[in-house]
Amino acid sequence: MNILGGFVNNIGGFVKDRLPKNKPAEFQKIDGKAIAETITKEIAAELTDLKAKTGKAPGLAVVIVGSRGDSQTYVNMKKKKCKECGIESYGKELPETVSQEELLKVVQDFNADPNVHGILVQLPLPKHIDEATILSAISIEKDVDGFHPLNIGALCMKGRDPLFVPCTPKGCIELLDRMGVEMKGKHAVVLGRSNIVGMPAALLLLKRDATVSIVHSRTVNPEAEVRRADILISCCGQAQIVKSKWIKKGAVIIDVGTNAVPDASKKAGFRLVGDCDYAEVSKTASMCTPVPGGVGPMTIAMLMRNTADSVKRAYLKE
Amino acid sequence: MNILGGFVNNIGGFVKDRLPKNKPAEFQKIDGKAIAETITKEIAAELTDLKAKTGKAPGLAVVIVGSRGDSQTYVNMKKKKCKECGIESYGKELPETVSQEELLKVVQDFNADPNVHGILVQLPLPKHIDEATILSAISIEKDVDGFHPLNIGALCMKGRDPLFVPCTPKGCIELLDRMGVEMKGKHAVVLGRSNIVGMPAALLLLKRDATVSIVHSRTVNPEAEVRRADILISCCGQAQIVKSKWIKKGAVIIDVGTNAVPDASKKAGFRLVGDCDYAEVSKTASMCTPVPGGVGPMTIAMLMRNTADSVKRAYLKE
Repeated sequence: MNILGGFVNNIGGFVKDRLPKNKPAEFQKIDGKAIAETITKEIAAELTDLKAKTGKAPGLAVVIVGSRGDSQTYVNMKKKKCKECGIESYGKELPETVSQEELLKVVQDFNADPNVHGILVQLPLPKHIDEATILSAISIEKDVDGFHPLNIGALCMKGRDPLFVPCTPKGCIELLDRMGVEMKGKHAVVLGRSNIVGMPAALLLLKRDATVSIVHSRTVNPEAEVRRADILISCCGQAQIVKSKWIKKGAVIIDVGTNAVPDASKKAGFRLVGDCDYAEVSKTASMCTPVPGGVGPMTIAMLMRNTADSVKRAYLKE
Repeated sequence: MNILGGFVNNIGGFVKDRLPKNKPAEFQKIDGKAIAETITKEIAAELTDLKAKTGKAPGLAVVIVGSRGDSQTYVNMKKKKCKECGIESYGKELPETVSQEELLKVVQDFNADPNVHGILVQLPLPKHIDEATILSAISIEKDVDGFHPLNIGALCMKGRDPLFVPCTPKGCIELLDRMGVEMKGKHAVVLGRSNIVGMPAALLLLKRDATVSIVHSRTVNPEAEVRRADILISCCGQAQIVKSKWIKKGAVIIDVGTNAVPDASKKAGFRLVGDCDYAEVSKTASMCTPVPGGVGPMTIAMLMRNTADSVKRAYLKE
C-alpha cells in the first residue's frame, strides 16, 4: 500500500468537504432575544390556559447567597421574566456567612412546598459551602436547572430522558431548531467542557445524532479542530478568541461566551463580547448569535420552559 | 483574507501532523490477557492482606436471568476469576419467566447483605423486565458495574468522582496507562456510543484531558474521523470494519469489538474478531489489542478491581 497515496486522497477529502457546494447564502444573525421573546409568549399562553383549567399558579424559588452584583442582576432578570410568564417568584436571600446546614434547610423547605415547582440556587456559592451537596439536595422533580447528577446521568444514557435539561445548552439546541439547522450527521464542535454548558451541550448534540468533538484548554490545536465544525457551540470564556480563519465556510455558530472587555467609551468601563469575534466570523459563518442578545435571553427562557414543564408534570400527577 | 491560502495552510497542518516525526517504532501487540493476569495477582495479594487484617472476605453477587449460553459463559468466567482473587461468589439463577418484582426482591436482598460488596445483574434481561428499573435498584455502593445513572452522572461532571467506573471502558484506560500511552492533549476517537462502553470511554478520555470525538452510526464519514485519532477506542460491533487506511500512522488502538464471523475450520463454526482488521491495522498503528485476548480479560479484571475497592470502602466505614 502506498502510504503517501493515502495521504493525498485524504487531503483531497478535506478540501472537498470544505469547499462550498453552492454559492453561500447571506450571513444571518441568530436573534436570540427575539426568539426568547416568542418563547416567553408561548409559555405565558400555555400557563394562562393551565391556570384557567386548574386555578393554580406555578412557582419558581430562587435562592441567592451573598451579595454579588452579577448574581443579583441575574436574579432580578429571572423574577421579571417569571412575571411575564405568569410564574410566581419565591425568593430567599441569605447572607454570605450562612451555614451549609441553614442553606440545606432552605432547599428542603422549598422541596416540601407544593406551591414551588422549580428551585434554583444561584451559583457560585461561597467557598465554605459544598456546591455538590447543595445541588444534590434539590428534589430531582424541582431541579429546573438540570444540574442534579441523576439528570446529567440520564442525559448521557441512551433510552433515558432527564426530567430537566440544563438551561443554557438547552437554549443552544432550541436556537438551532428554531433556525432550522439540521444536526443529524453534522460535525459539531463544542469549545469548552464545563459541567453547566460544554458537557451537556455535547451530550445533547450527540442525542441529536451529530458527530461531536469536545475541544478544551488541553487541546493542542483548537483552531484546526474548530475549523472542522459544521456547527460550533463556543463556551470557553475567552474573549473573541475565535476568528474568521477558525471557521469553516457556512458553519453555524452558537456563541455562549459572555466576556467583559475594557471599554472606556462605556459608562461601566467595559462591554460584553463573545468567545467569537462576531464581525470577523460573520465573513465565513452562515449564522451566528450575537453577544449580548444571543444565548443569554435563551437561558432565562429555558428556565421558564423547565418550570412550566415541571408544573404540568406536577398537575398530571395530582 | 485569502481563503484558499487558509485551506493550503490547513492541509499543510494535517500532513505535518500525520507524518511520523521519528522512524516509527515496531508495532506492539497490547497483551490484555497478560496485563489482566498481572492485575488479578495484584488484587489477590491486596485481598489476602486485607483478610489477614480484618478476617473478612469480600463478596460479589451475580444475578443471571434465563439460560442464554453466552451469559452462562461470562458468569462462569467471573466466578473462576473471583476464586483467583479471593472474592466469594454469590450466585442467583432465575428463570426467564421471573417477574420484575421477584428480580427486584433479589437485588434488594443482596443490597442488604453485609457479605456482598458488589452486585452484578447480567445483561441483557428478558423483554418483560425494565432494565433501567433493575439497574437503578442496585445500591450505588455495590454498583460494581458502574451503570447506575448517579455513577454515570458523576463520571461526566468535573469535580465529582463516581464510586465505580464501568468495567470495559475502565479496562481500556488501564491498558493505555499500563502501556505508557499519554492521553493528555491527544486526539482520541471513540467509535460507538453505547451506554456501557462508548459513552463512558469518551468521558474517561475527557477526564484524562484528551480531545475527544465521538463517532457513530450517523457519522457521515467515519473513516475520515477515525483517521484523525492518535488513540482509537473502537466499540461499534462491526466485524473488521476498520482497515489500515482508516488509521493514522503510529496510532494506538483499543479494540473492544467482539464479533462472531463464520469460520468452517472451527468446531463452533465461527471465530471472534474485533471491529478492526488486526493484521491490516498493525501495518499503520503503533499498538493494538488483539481479539480475543485484549479488552475481554480486562473487563473481568476491572470487575474484580471494583469489587476489591468496594470491600475496602466498606471496611473503612465500619
